[in-house]
Amino acid sequence: MSASTSRGGGRGGGSSGASGSGTKGKGSGGPCGACKFLRKKCDPGCVFAPYFDPDQGAIYFASVHKVFGASNVGKLLSKIPVHKRLDAVISICYEAQARMRDPVYGCVGQICTLQQQVLFIFKFSIEITRHIT
Amino acid sequence: MSASTSRGGGRGGGSSGASGSGTKGKGSGGPCGACKFLRKKCDPGCVFAPYFDPDQGAIYFASVHKVFGASNVGKLLSKIPVHKRLDAVISICYEAQARMRDPVYGCVGQICTLQQQVLFIFKFSIEITRHIT
Repeated sequence: MSASTSRGGGRGGGSSGASGSGTKGKGSGGPCGACKFLRKKCDPGCVFAPYFDPDQGAIYFASVHKVFGASNVGKLLSKIPVHKRLDAVISICYEAQARMRDPVYGCVGQICTLQQQVLFIFKFSIEITRHIT
Repeated sequence: MSASTSRGGGRGGGSSGASGSGTKGKGSGGPCGACKFLRKKCDPGCVFAPYFDPDQGAIYFASVHKVFGASNVGKLLSKIPVHKRLDAVISICYEAQARMRDPVYGCVGQICTLQQQVLFIFKFSIEITRHIT
């Protein structure tokens, strides 16, 4: 899943904040972006480390923590198969950023807008079909 | 905003879990659904009380708490103008339930599907227009 929300892509990252760069806790040096933000020790098995790099990852993790809470996201990720976790992190980052931009509607606002677009274009195409037949 | 995500409606509730029934902390008797779930005292100024009734509200609050955390949602709501809080609660319940159903994509999965639908119908209507002209 890329930042533009296309599903199942995997290795996008970009503005979603998930890097998938393979930063694995203390093994690669400093703490991951999540542990850096939380100012805690980054264990080798840190569930956030593969997805939040020490630089940009900390910035994105800030909104994830503010909206969902680090503990909730950690629990959620640990229940998801490893090969699906990057997609999960990207969708979580996307939701968190949407909620930061629009505290009332979050990304549900986008769902409303898209539903209206689908309805509008669908009605429009029916009108055109009527003209043909 | 109703459970079907139409925006700005206000007094819908339904499967979103937000009742907007005006249960105001201890003033109306027992604790609100959120405080009932959290097993804590429901103060008269409880930020959750107007939106989570003691019965169904507790059930919906369970998913909100699991996904976002009561503390995060409480902070978010307290920063939103009162007349916008019901919409915020409904969108939060909607997101929480979507994440419970689909832990990997949550409601971002719906955004992907809708984006694909918009694109598909848009291309379809362009094809039809070509037939006419």
